[in-house]
Amino acid sequence: MFNHLLKIGMFSIALVSGSSNADVLNIKEQKQLVALKEKALASDLSYDLIESLTTEVGHRLVGSEGDKKSISWAVNKMKTLGFDKVWTEEVIATYWQRGEIEAKVVSPYPHNVVAIALGGSVGTHAKGITKNIAHFKTFQDLEAAPDHSLKGRIAFVSYRMERHIDGNGYRPAVSARVYGASVAAQKGASAIIIRSIGTDNNRIAHTGSVKYKKGLHKIPAASISNPDADMLLNQLKRSDNVAFFLKLTSYSDPKVVAKTANVIGEITGSEFPDELVTIGAHLDSWDVGTGAVDDGIGVGIMMASAHHIAQLSIKPKRTIRVILFAAEEIGLVGVKSYVNKRNGDIKNHAIGAEWDFGVGPIYEMRTGVGKKSLPALKEFAQYLKPMGVGLSKTNTAKAHSDMSVMSDAGMPSVNFAPDGSLYFDYHHTDNDTLDKVDAKALKHNTAIYTMFAYFTAQSGIDFSQ
Amino acid sequence: MFNHLLKIGMFSIALVSGSSNADVLNIKEQKQLVALKEKALASDLSYDLIESLTTEVGHRLVGSEGDKKSISWAVNKMKTLGFDKVWTEEVIATYWQRGEIEAKVVSPYPHNVVAIALGGSVGTHAKGITKNIAHFKTFQDLEAAPDHSLKGRIAFVSYRMERHIDGNGYRPAVSARVYGASVAAQKGASAIIIRSIGTDNNRIAHTGSVKYKKGLHKIPAASISNPDADMLLNQLKRSDNVAFFLKLTSYSDPKVVAKTANVIGEITGSEFPDELVTIGAHLDSWDVGTGAVDDGIGVGIMMASAHHIAQLSIKPKRTIRVILFAAEEIGLVGVKSYVNKRNGDIKNHAIGAEWDFGVGPIYEMRTGVGKKSLPALKEFAQYLKPMGVGLSKTNTAKAHSDMSVMSDAGMPSVNFAPDGSLYFDYHHTDNDTLDKVDAKALKHNTAIYTMFAYFTAQSGIDFSQ
Repeated sequence: MFNHLLKIGMFSIALVSGSSNADVLNIKEQKQLVALKEKALASDLSYDLIESLTTEVGHRLVGSEGDKKSISWAVNKMKTLGFDKVWTEEVIATYWQRGEIEAKVVSPYPHNVVAIALGGSVGTHAKGITKNIAHFKTFQDLEAAPDHSLKGRIAFVSYRMERHIDGNGYRPAVSARVYGASVAAQKGASAIIIRSIGTDNNRIAHTGSVKYKKGLHKIPAASISNPDADMLLNQLKRSDNVAFFLKLTSYSDPKVVAKTANVIGEITGSEFPDELVTIGAHLDSWDVGTGAVDDGIGVGIMMASAHHIAQLSIKPKRTIRVILFAAEEIGLVGVKSYVNKRNGDIKNHAIGAEWDFGVGPIYEMRTGVGKKSLPALKEFAQYLKPMGVGLSKTNTAKAHSDMSVMSDAGMPSVNFAPDGSLYFDYHHTDNDTLDKVDAKALKHNTAIYTMFAYFTAQSGIDFSQ
Repeated sequence: MFNHLLKIGMFSIALVSGSSNADVLNIKEQKQLVALKEKALASDLSYDLIESLTTEVGHRLVGSEGDKKSISWAVNKMKTLGFDKVWTEEVIATYWQRGEIEAKVVSPYPHNVVAIALGGSVGTHAKGITKNIAHFKTFQDLEAAPDHSLKGRIAFVSYRMERHIDGNGYRPAVSARVYGASVAAQKGASAIIIRSIGTDNNRIAHTGSVKYKKGLHKIPAASISNPDADMLLNQLKRSDNVAFFLKLTSYSDPKVVAKTANVIGEITGSEFPDELVTIGAHLDSWDVGTGAVDDGIGVGIMMASAHHIAQLSIKPKRTIRVILFAAEEIGLVGVKSYVNKRNGDIKNHAIGAEWDFGVGPIYEMRTGVGKKSLPALKEFAQYLKPMGVGLSKTNTAKAHSDMSVMSDAGMPSVNFAPDGSLYFDYHHTDNDTLDKVDAKALKHNTAIYTMFAYFTAQSGIDFSQ
């Protein structure tokens, strides 16, 4: 329970009854909310921020020059945009070097293969390795292979991710990327290649993190583009002996740490400055493309939303905190650091929402808040309804990505579900560039985050209840 | 006039009147035509041929290992598919080496750039060059620049090709690729980069031939991907001094010739074996992707069409000749050699049609034949109508690509116009792979070429009249 609610108990009482006619926002505040919506819908600011970030900074791999530049960029932009407080909190991460990759089918039919190292992968021998392919249709098939059965082989998982609006094809596909290297190592494989975790048909491979199981030999892990995976399957139809060459010079030096930072900016609350409405995204990206979609869109939305609110003559009651997390891509390192720095106590975080998925318009709001406060969000949902945004029937949502860690630590959360049909065409690829940003959907989405931040900050509802 | 028409003058007389009720094909032949259509629509052969070519051979750059392999592949396939005669005719071409490319914006905001050498380009100095960009929105703007005004600059043409069903966005765009290097050299530029001649938004650049004007200094020429061109424009909005690094190790050694070959196969005519219905495609490709679309589709269609007809117990009256041209991509070298070898006399080529454009279904037949024979093709068009294929109002068409040279040499021609909306997404890129082939449209298109070859071979019409 927030202290201020002891003073202005009306809302919580109203919400306990669940049938009050009292609106959460008064007439003036309701008008303000609609005015903010109109302002965000008419503004190009979030797009312009993404354009600036992707043009002036480019990719932002943890520890890279771009990562450092992005921190200054974000601090300067926040100051320019009228944030009251802006600061950084150092985050220590591993600096992984992608190096070079060379991949090809050697026989029966020589072909060059478009491949990319998975994030965190170790390298091969300097001269590369040539081994026969052991093919598995799914990660489960790989898991079912007998121990030592892959000795002298490169494992290949060919499962293809399905396209869905909510991106739910990702989960069954991504285990091959995250855990495949460890499972293949356990079976004795020399390396693993996987079909890209992506829904496109481009000769562009998708990267993303691999997790090595402790105590197991680390083997090189790469993904190959969807058309190359098709070609490899066509060779495997013709021969059981498909020889594959892989050379990879990736490495991580455990002695070298990358110093990066979460960038935090606030619009100070006019009545309850210690209570935080948090909206977030991650500032880092992979070193392919310019991270326009992942997560430039999130960065643009959050900074623009806070700016629109900062322009109000009277600021909302609670503080609005924008958190741009560091080192999300390599394992949610920034948010873990953020929570640890606060000893796990984030009770002053009244509610939070992140953007780290999707390209198209938000079509549903999903809640993960206390039962008593749910009616307030149902009232908020009425503002979203004419925008084509529904409300989930369940109340078990976590925030996206980084902030899911904060949801787990007890932060009341909202998850806005956008159309993600195209997201995995670009995700973690060289194709993640500005032209993939849907400028119209971006306005819609920025308006929703702006309204959300205003509503939850101004209403002062205790969403933990 | 073909000799046989002196013997069986009926058709030409009927066609002179233009109002005969006599059908060009008799009832039995009409049934045969429909049976061939059904057979082609039910067959996967053309797809399987493309799958085989792209899997077992891969790309087929003139003079490369793949080029050589493709010739054996085509000869063997034709023999297997029941062609009566199969032979090759040597073609001598230049062997251009692509080498390596490195391209990046050096300042104000460093970015790596996805670029590709244009076919035939010379290289830069071994260490590359760094020069400021001189930007032109169109090729015409570049042409309008004063002489010597580009000294110490890299010219950049940013015109973006438009997407159209008939590919007519290509013509206004492609002059920058073909002639840009010579025009820029004339103005004193050190090199030229162009926005890819393509309709996609992938970080994949499009190659294609450059023509150097004789007597002018040759400068390196490369294209950059559409998203990279956007990024470069965004930098040019911010600064007049955008420094670009280009390193290119391409070269042609005029002393080294590439020996390649046109591959020719025939289904011998049962009555007029010396009169040729010619259907064609080109066998070579660029060294990016696997040339599945350009021109694997054409190769698959022509070989499958001839095969379907070869399966008939009585062969059509005229000979059906399939020509798979060499070295199309580097300047129609194969077809020129074909025509030269015959001293320009191709009067025995009764009619011809090629496929070298499009991915989707044919929607129109365009004719370029004698006035008297036009009614016969109008009759043929009646068979295509239920397949959604219209007939052009004009009668001035040339055949596609290679065969346009034969049209110019007097060969009566048909041009089947397919849906080319997606063609320039893949054209001359690493993305030209098997997955881009539309299997359903391919059946439709194969059926049409099969019917065309049968109709024109069996009817014996003199299409030059």
